[in-house]
This record gives sequence, C-alpha cells and structure tokens, in this order.
Amino acid sequence: MGLKRSDRREFLKRGAALAGGLGVAAVKPAMGQTPGNILGTDELVGYGKRSRFVKSVRIPHGGRPSPDAFGLDFHIAAPLQDSVGVITPSSLHYMGTTRGSFVPDINPAEHRLMIHGMVDRPLIFTMDELKRLPSVTRLHFIECAGNRSSSRKTTVQETHGMTSCAEWTGVLLSTLLKEAGVQDGGSWIVAEGVEEVKGASSIPMAKAMEDCLLCYGMNGEAVRPQQGFPLRLLVPGFEGILSVKWLRRIKVVDRFYMTYNDYGNLSQDADDAALKMQIGPKSVITYPSGGQQLPGRGFYQISGLAWSGGGAVSRVEISTDGGRSWTDADIRGTAHPMAHTRFSYNWNWDGSECELQSRCTDELGSIQSSRAQIAEFWNVPPGQPFRVRGHDNSIQPWRIDRDGSVHNAIS
Amino acid sequence: MGLKRSDRREFLKRGAALAGGLGVAAVKPAMGQTPGNILGTDELVGYGKRSRFVKSVRIPHGGRPSPDAFGLDFHIAAPLQDSVGVITPSSLHYMGTTRGSFVPDINPAEHRLMIHGMVDRPLIFTMDELKRLPSVTRLHFIECAGNRSSSRKTTVQETHGMTSCAEWTGVLLSTLLKEAGVQDGGSWIVAEGVEEVKGASSIPMAKAMEDCLLCYGMNGEAVRPQQGFPLRLLVPGFEGILSVKWLRRIKVVDRFYMTYNDYGNLSQDADDAALKMQIGPKSVITYPSGGQQLPGRGFYQISGLAWSGGGAVSRVEISTDGGRSWTDADIRGTAHPMAHTRFSYNWNWDGSECELQSRCTDELGSIQSSRAQIAEFWNVPPGQPFRVRGHDNSIQPWRIDRDGSVHNAIS
Repeated sequence: MGLKRSDRREFLKRGAALAGGLGVAAVKPAMGQTPGNILGTDELVGYGKRSRFVKSVRIPHGGRPSPDAFGLDFHIAAPLQDSVGVITPSSLHYMGTTRGSFVPDINPAEHRLMIHGMVDRPLIFTMDELKRLPSVTRLHFIECAGNRSSSRKTTVQETHGMTSCAEWTGVLLSTLLKEAGVQDGGSWIVAEGVEEVKGASSIPMAKAMEDCLLCYGMNGEAVRPQQGFPLRLLVPGFEGILSVKWLRRIKVVDRFYMTYNDYGNLSQDADDAALKMQIGPKSVITYPSGGQQLPGRGFYQISGLAWSGGGAVSRVEISTDGGRSWTDADIRGTAHPMAHTRFSYNWNWDGSECELQSRCTDELGSIQSSRAQIAEFWNVPPGQPFRVRGHDNSIQPWRIDRDGSVHNAIS
Repeated sequence: MGLKRSDRREFLKRGAALAGGLGVAAVKPAMGQTPGNILGTDELVGYGKRSRFVKSVRIPHGGRPSPDAFGLDFHIAAPLQDSVGVITPSSLHYMGTTRGSFVPDINPAEHRLMIHGMVDRPLIFTMDELKRLPSVTRLHFIECAGNRSSSRKTTVQETHGMTSCAEWTGVLLSTLLKEAGVQDGGSWIVAEGVEEVKGASSIPMAKAMEDCLLCYGMNGEAVRPQQGFPLRLLVPGFEGILSVKWLRRIKVVDRFYMTYNDYGNLSQDADDAALKMQIGPKSVITYPSGGQQLPGRGFYQISGLAWSGGGAVSRVEISTDGGRSWTDADIRGTAHPMAHTRFSYNWNWDGSECELQSRCTDELGSIQSSRAQIAEFWNVPPGQPFRVRGHDNSIQPWRIDRDGSVHNAIS
C-alpha cells in the first residue's frame, strides 16, 4: 500500500522543488494555539462529533434546491473533492430517492422481511432472526445510474458525487433463497422497500444467487435511515436503484416485472438486463478537481477513485496532457471487487496550462470510455456539446490554468 | 469472504432447526409500518444522522462516571457488543486521554508540524502542505495498553472496549524523516501533541521509519477531534498512547526520553522497548458476549474480532467447551496487518450450559495466551483471582447459562 521504492526515489529527487514549493520557513518552536475544551460530556462520551472547522457537506444533485421543489426524485451528492481513502463516511454517503425527501422512520423491532412467491417454504424474518444467520462483510460501492458529467457542472461533487463506498455487513441473499427453496422457473426476484412507490426492482436470479446482500450493517454500525435502515438490499456493481432500501419483501417470480424504479429498462432477458444494469469501469480524479485552486507550481500527489461493476479495478492510468500520453497510477491498498479503489500519482506541476485525466481498467479487461467514444456511440457529430443518456462512464478531464485554478474541461 | 462451501452445507443441513428456532410464522403480506418522514432538510442534505432507534454508545471506562471525577486520565470504551465488520465508526471509536476531558479546539489553518532535532534540514509544515505529499491509506487498530478484562467486568465493552479500528489516511513518517535527513546517532523520536501534558512519547527510530503514519484522514473524512484533529501520529500495532494526538512536533533524538506518557516503561534499548510496546495477539467474541441474552437453543453465528501488533491475523480458533477442544473459525475478508479482523463460526446451541472462547494466532506464529499462562507468568497461585498488570492478551471466556444469559467466566 505504500509508495513503491522507485516512486519514493522520484519523490526524493524532487526534494529541492518540494522544500521550495512547500515554503519551509525558519523553525520556530512556538506554533500551537491556545488549547480549549470543545466537547461537553454527551459528545465526549456517547457518540462523538466532527470538528467545527470541517465543513464538508453533501449537496442537492442536479440543481434542485430542496426536496420540496419537485415532487419526484431528489438526490444528494457526496463531497468527493474532500474524500480520502475508499470509505465514504455514512453521514456523507450519497442518497437517491424516488419520491421527494421521503425517509421512513422504521422501528427495527417491528420490521419484517418476507421471502415468498415461487419458493417451497415462504419465510418471514425479524431483524433479530436475520442477525443470527451466517453473515459476510464486504466493501462495495453504490452508484446512481444517473451519475454523469456535463459541461454545465463545475466540481467533482456535481459531476460524480452520486457514488459512494462503504463496508457493508449482512446475510447473503443466496442463503435465504436456498433456505426458502427456489422453485423451477423462478428466474427473477422483485425486491420491495417501504416507500410510497414501493421502491421495487426486478433482479435476475443469477445475480441474486451470486453476491447480493441483505445489509443491516454499514461502516461498523447499523445502516443509516437514508441508506435503508434497518435493512437494505445490496446488488454489487449494478445501478444503485436496484439496491432497494427499507427492504421488506422479496418475491421470486418467473419473469421481469416493470416497476416504478425501472426508468424504461425493458430487458426481459436476464443476461441482457444484467449487462445493462452493470456500472463502469469508471474513475475520476478527486484532487486536483474542478473548483479547486493549486497554490503554485511544484510537487502534488494527484489522487482519485476508480470502480467497476465488472469486478476489481486492475489498472488506472493518468494523463497530464489531455489524453495524448498515459502513465500507470499507483493503486492504493487492496482493490476489492465492486468497490471504490483509491489511486494516486506523484506529479510535479511546471506551472503551464494542462489537462488531467484518469482511465480505469477492470479485471475483465474492460476499459473506461473516452467522451469521444461515447459521442460516437450516440451518433453525436464531433465537437458538438452533448449530454450522455443512460450510464456514463466516460473519462473526466480537468484543466489546470496557469493561475492554478482547476476547471471541468468537457466541451 | 463468503461462507465456505462446506460451511454452507452444514448450515443448510441445519435448516429444519433454523426454521424452527427462528419461528417462521404464517406468511402475512401486511408487515410494514406507517411510514413517516423523519429528516428535515439539514440532516437530509448536509450531514446525515443515525436512526433514533439505534442507541449504541460509548461508556466511561473503569468505573469513572465523568471526566470531572478524576483529574487524570479519562477513557471511553467502544460498544464492541454492537460491532459489525471491522471498521469502528468514528463517532464510536474509543478514546483515551492523559488529562481529563481535554480535547483541544484546533483551527487546522493555524496548525503546524515541526520536524527538528538531529536532522540536516528542520522542517515546518502546514496542513495544506502535508496534504500535497505522497500519502497512504491503511486499516489499523489502536488499542490502549490498559485494555484488560477482569472478573469484575460484565460486558465486552467493559472488558475489551479500549480498542478500535479505522481506515487511516496520511503521510508515512519515513517520507518526512528522509526529507529532513536523520543524522548519525538519531535513534529515537519524541512525538508531542497539543495537550496540557504535551502527550509526548518516545518511539524507536526503526519503528518510525517502518510504518508510522501522520494521519489527517480517518474513515474517509478528517480525523475527529477526539482522535487528534487535525493530525495524529499512528504507530501501528504498538500501545495506543504512542499514537500521539493533535501532533505538532517530532524531535529526532539519540536516546529514549521519559515523558508523562511512559507509565514506567524504562526500556532504553530500542528492540526491547519495541517488543514491550507491541500489542497482542488478541481476540474476543463480541456475539454472544457478556450481558447478552440468547432467545433459545438453535443456530447462531458466533462472531468476534482478532488483532495483533505483530502483523496480520493468520488463524482464529473457537472453543465451545471452555477450552478443552478447538475448531478453526472463518476469517472474514482480508486480514490486514495490525488491523481488527472479523471472524465467525457457525454454531448450533443445544441449550446446555457451555463456555465460549476464542484464540488468535498471528502471521509470526504467536498465539494468544490463556489466562492460566498469564497467571503463571505473574506467579499467581492456581485458582486465585488476579488482575493482569501491563498488557493483557489473555483469552476471554463467556459462559452461557441454560436460560441463554451470557456471563464473563473469568474467576
């Protein structure tokens, strides 16, 4: 997980530039501030808080100022520009809803999960019963299918903030389906949550049996209300809307069912649908990113996130010349399947205008698309501005001007 | 990370017992509750909260009711009985302080880190400068050397709550020490934080150069004030007090210096001191654990945490008969060096009184001690109650009575 020996040498060779760039002043021992005690007993003991100097917050997605402005979906984007590592703090995890600001207030003692439909033994579980079963813990991203960039967006929170990654704990859906006994012909499931619109989704049985999770744990504690407390279905690597929140029912059925959540996905073939539901491969540089300001030329560590619905990230490349040449970035730590993966690249900025890009390859060998490839796919004439519809895994370019300001370089 | 095929078969064979034990009632489709909208716009958008039904909190350690009751150290223990996975949520991370409830209120824009002493180039860094440097992200536990069980304690929060694990992001200390240029004879560092008592610690240079981190990130956001915001030294696998919070100064010196934090550690030999500073190997079952109640005989997944200052956990064994026989538990996910590692073991309780234990082995082959071995080391006559002094990595026994109540079985 550390620097490779060669990188460290490269960094140390730049020692002079670094010391200059970082403005190491005369050493003065008095550098503390007057200490104070900021925390009362409640926060000190029970459940701690972040510093009042840390202002990083989620923002409404897509220019909608509040949940009340539109009656339909309201989404909140995570501040990726401030992210470090791969965990998204639960308080900053992106959220999508299909009906306004609706977050049900569920008492877990009263919540039940039912498995029924084409099964031999219909089952109902309390939360306590689910927690007695064999469980797994896995790092997975969830990303909204509508997480896409455009020339109208400024920051990485606006372009890519509808993805997040957490350590999820729960029971494999396959464990329960085997317990219930799926009957011949049971080829899909419909999962339903406690939402006004039910928040139901159809998922192919092959995926349900492969790696779907019924999660009660998230980043070491109970799943948060905005993420589906007390129980969320997690469909790793597929578009986020399938990871049904406030899960209360799974019905085994013999075909794809249209639901409120489908947004026009009419695939009734399991393989075809699954491929359309799968995210990525994708990546974005979070530092430096749009709206940020570099203080001057010198050493920087470029850093970002890569992920793929197809498996683990196997390679991330960086271009600092607008995509003409590419160099491998360092993949930090273990690249887990269907999980955000942190990459970094040690870079010396010479102060001239340049364009940064990142490109992800996953373990299947799939490579993140360029925006030109996406344009070609949608038959957009070269050079003409366009908005991607459907999944957008295109490369995000950031332009750094000579004054150190960073801009979205999508034309 | 999933169940091994053999375990799953074993689980499925117990299907009848499971269905019975879990009380699968008649299927009735109406099982939701009246939904409501629990979140106003601030919490909905900016920085989310946990459910009002989740009550898990930290507690004061060692029977001290509040920070004011004693003028000296005040510690807060994490609710391990509610833990899932390996991440401790930052709001529930254990905290130790050497002076009451003191948590400095540091403005990161004014904070500085100085590296000085026996170096060629003394350096001062702002937080922004540190964040430009090559960084790493690693999962590590921090544990207080005083995290020990006794017969007087009831729950796992009381016996083992002074350990926690987080995803830490920051700069390798070796990166800065190489940049500063350690002079011949610089064999120790003294690290100092912004505390009344300075919170200083002496750390051998070999450890400082190996894997120590200067952390500004924790679980994907800024380090929390109680954990050292804006900068914490992390000394992986060594007793927690060495991981100096609110770090402002690192001085390279030629010998061990006694500080307020040393609690009688007089080792001046680096190897000897390092060995005494190292934690574990250690493990504890978090479910079922003291104070919990099993609803009745049947299937349970025993679950717990294992860790070692010597490296990654390589094996965890479970005994359900008070240590007479042992069986390998499943290690869940990747066992990272000096990190909490989740283990689990599928178990069918027959309703008779029994005693659960777990035993950890690390990648060095070191095995967690039995309490009898610890007693022998301290020359305690067999059968006599005793309190461990210094590090205690002894096996924790939990007794399950026939009524399903779980008790600390230390005599």
